[in-house]
Amino acid sequence: MPSPTPDPPVGAAVPGQVPVPARHPRLDPLADRYAARTHGMKSSEIRALFSVVSRPEVVSLAGGMPAVTALPLDAVGSMIGELVSGMGAQTLQYGSGQGDPRLRERICDVMALEGITDASPSEVVVTVGSQQGLDLVTRVFVDPGDVILAEAPSYVGALGVFQAAQARVQHVLMDDEGLVPEALEDALIECRARGDKVKFLYTIPNFHNPAGITLTEERRGKVMEIADRYDLLVVEDNPYGLLGFDREPMRALRARDAERVIYLGSFSKTFSPGLRVGWVLAPLAVREKLVLATEAQVLCPPSLTQYAVARYLDTQPWQQQIKTFIELYRERRDACLDSLSALMPPGTTWTKPDGGFYVWLKLPRGLDAKLMQPRAVSAHVAYVPGIGFYADGQGKEYMRLSYCYPEPDQIREGVRRLARVVEAELDLHSTFDGVDTGTFRRVGSTPASPSLVGPASTDQIGDQP
Amino acid sequence: MPSPTPDPPVGAAVPGQVPVPARHPRLDPLADRYAARTHGMKSSEIRALFSVVSRPEVVSLAGGMPAVTALPLDAVGSMIGELVSGMGAQTLQYGSGQGDPRLRERICDVMALEGITDASPSEVVVTVGSQQGLDLVTRVFVDPGDVILAEAPSYVGALGVFQAAQARVQHVLMDDEGLVPEALEDALIECRARGDKVKFLYTIPNFHNPAGITLTEERRGKVMEIADRYDLLVVEDNPYGLLGFDREPMRALRARDAERVIYLGSFSKTFSPGLRVGWVLAPLAVREKLVLATEAQVLCPPSLTQYAVARYLDTQPWQQQIKTFIELYRERRDACLDSLSALMPPGTTWTKPDGGFYVWLKLPRGLDAKLMQPRAVSAHVAYVPGIGFYADGQGKEYMRLSYCYPEPDQIREGVRRLARVVEAELDLHSTFDGVDTGTFRRVGSTPASPSLVGPASTDQIGDQP
Repeated sequence: MPSPTPDPPVGAAVPGQVPVPARHPRLDPLADRYAARTHGMKSSEIRALFSVVSRPEVVSLAGGMPAVTALPLDAVGSMIGELVSGMGAQTLQYGSGQGDPRLRERICDVMALEGITDASPSEVVVTVGSQQGLDLVTRVFVDPGDVILAEAPSYVGALGVFQAAQARVQHVLMDDEGLVPEALEDALIECRARGDKVKFLYTIPNFHNPAGITLTEERRGKVMEIADRYDLLVVEDNPYGLLGFDREPMRALRARDAERVIYLGSFSKTFSPGLRVGWVLAPLAVREKLVLATEAQVLCPPSLTQYAVARYLDTQPWQQQIKTFIELYRERRDACLDSLSALMPPGTTWTKPDGGFYVWLKLPRGLDAKLMQPRAVSAHVAYVPGIGFYADGQGKEYMRLSYCYPEPDQIREGVRRLARVVEAELDLHSTFDGVDTGTFRRVGSTPASPSLVGPASTDQIGDQP
Repeated sequence: MPSPTPDPPVGAAVPGQVPVPARHPRLDPLADRYAARTHGMKSSEIRALFSVVSRPEVVSLAGGMPAVTALPLDAVGSMIGELVSGMGAQTLQYGSGQGDPRLRERICDVMALEGITDASPSEVVVTVGSQQGLDLVTRVFVDPGDVILAEAPSYVGALGVFQAAQARVQHVLMDDEGLVPEALEDALIECRARGDKVKFLYTIPNFHNPAGITLTEERRGKVMEIADRYDLLVVEDNPYGLLGFDREPMRALRARDAERVIYLGSFSKTFSPGLRVGWVLAPLAVREKLVLATEAQVLCPPSLTQYAVARYLDTQPWQQQIKTFIELYRERRDACLDSLSALMPPGTTWTKPDGGFYVWLKLPRGLDAKLMQPRAVSAHVAYVPGIGFYADGQGKEYMRLSYCYPEPDQIREGVRRLARVVEAELDLHSTFDGVDTGTFRRVGSTPASPSLVGPASTDQIGDQP
């Protein structure tokens, strides 16, 4: 809005008024035209690392890239080539906004592996990765100022969606058994007292990103009981559920409640992220809104990639391939955990994932993973600083280590470099006494509550069915 | 939120209070939880036709599906198969949010064909079709209540995006030379007087969807002069620009102003819509916002489809293929226009496209394309009623006919059926006198202004450089 009076000169304080910064010169001539949501958008901690981690001398424990070269590339290439040559009229053409019906049927088969046996293809919406699924759910439900509950920490890409939607995120404590039910109930009571509109709980129950933790069977029951009691929607994000190292997949939250849970799935970790095929399973009324939202956003998901996934599930030994991935990731997890145990200085703690891609590491007291990052990069190792996984600036003492992509030897070398950097930091800070024992910091509105004992206090996340 | 007092029984009036409707039973238990934007979403006129047009006995002049079977499917299949077999580590992996650098270079080559010679790959963002590009631009710029100017009529998918963004659309008159500059200026003056925030003009200058009209060279200069004078951003949507039947591509608006025009491009009509590869060309500051927005929405566009397009542009005779498409669409356009001239009853008028996919037809006075639709479907012909292309419910006397997909014989048969339906309607309505001469209805805020003479008053849209 043009002001009727001229802008004051730079730095000039007008009595009784907050000084107005000069409008010229400015870097972006459109700066005053953006939508309100745009001003809050910022680059993620992960993207900031892109240029670093692509340097060959750097061991990257930062990105969460699956090991796609473990796929039978020749067979997949032939399969996709034939889809285009033989079915170009379908695979190169527009499709439906909801997604290919055949793929939606096969998606229901995949979900059955996690106990979701009542899903209908009509309740499935195919999305451009589960990222788009989360964005659609958020657009359909969330007005600016609404509250979303999410674990502390939570997936950085989800926080980006919530920020773009101008939502407020209230973090809920997790420990080595996953989301803490009492903390969830406390958060709901608090939000109700404040009059907040809580639109949903966003949770990653299996092999959490970034925490590497899995919600126990007992906790699943408690979380859903609380959701029922407080009439809370749950958005269950489950990209890693089939990638457990030691046991069969756990029963999804959605398998317990078809009306209260919106389920997000993905083929990015079980097949290929470069195809960007994910999905949402939602009650029919919500499904209808999601289809309208995705039509406005992308018209329809790519046909070729949907046909590729459906054909892959139809003709390739995909369950065997998942076992191949599991063995590969287990070996890398072992390389990571063994090296951490052997090399990290006292006071450093970390989670012990039994599936998925990530270890969540807490530095000795006084160290800051973000501040330490330039020195780590100089030492040719990269990680993601923990603050990216909180909506409120917490988490500076944490980092996420991904073991999914580098070879075991690289992982060991990366941890060796990281350990040296941490030791040098400790020398610098001279904080060898008073290190704590690796608890999760409770983030949110009840800082006075005692922190529950964190995941690093047990040897293994195990003990789950 | 649970109420502290029980809900009143159905229909019970509480003294001094507005009666509260019973909450149970209701069709959608989540109806009171959706975001404000969700309540305005509705199914498009095109999707409502999906089940109809797939019936083999129906000649569909409804959908805008390109003739992908005219592609060399074997060659494209081999090419894509080899991309997966030989480069699976890249094509099946995550990529950058902005899109593959090699593809962005080639996109700049494509845009050079329309006079955009100063574009840098760093200013290009690859999107999941240009639909996502428009959605991103809208998210970055538009707050609820902001105004977007758009031609009357405008692309139905754009109106869906604007509706989801809770924008207000002000339509601007177009005639057979495209957007009317004086009407644009009038709209800007009017918006300024009302204090509206006009975020941008959305325009399709070439072979307009649905109107089939191209903005003349002279008008391009005038529109940009007005944009400059009123400091107006222009979003130029150009999926059809290379599909002109009679002449070289016209110079894009973006070629005239790199700072004021955000350009949307697409490979859906020149290669394949099933790959969903489009792009936005925007000034660097805007580009940065778009990348943040797309990362929140889809993380990154699919790698495989981007590599497929880049490889196609690198290795296949894509400009020759566009000429093949042009000949095919020209033949279909001729079949459509010739049949319309031969068969439609007096008082029916239509545009004469010299490129692209669409004819915009106006029914004789008194007829309503939406009301007539069930009878057309019974007669086994489908079209899109015009009201879908206006944000304000206007356009009932119009319909869009797409000649891009059916074979010429089918087109002729479809027009024959349509002509019979129109004649039967005319008999029914007995409105043979008083038919008008095919003017565009001015839509928007100045209904008292005289309508300008519409496109059907000239024999041909030609006379443009």
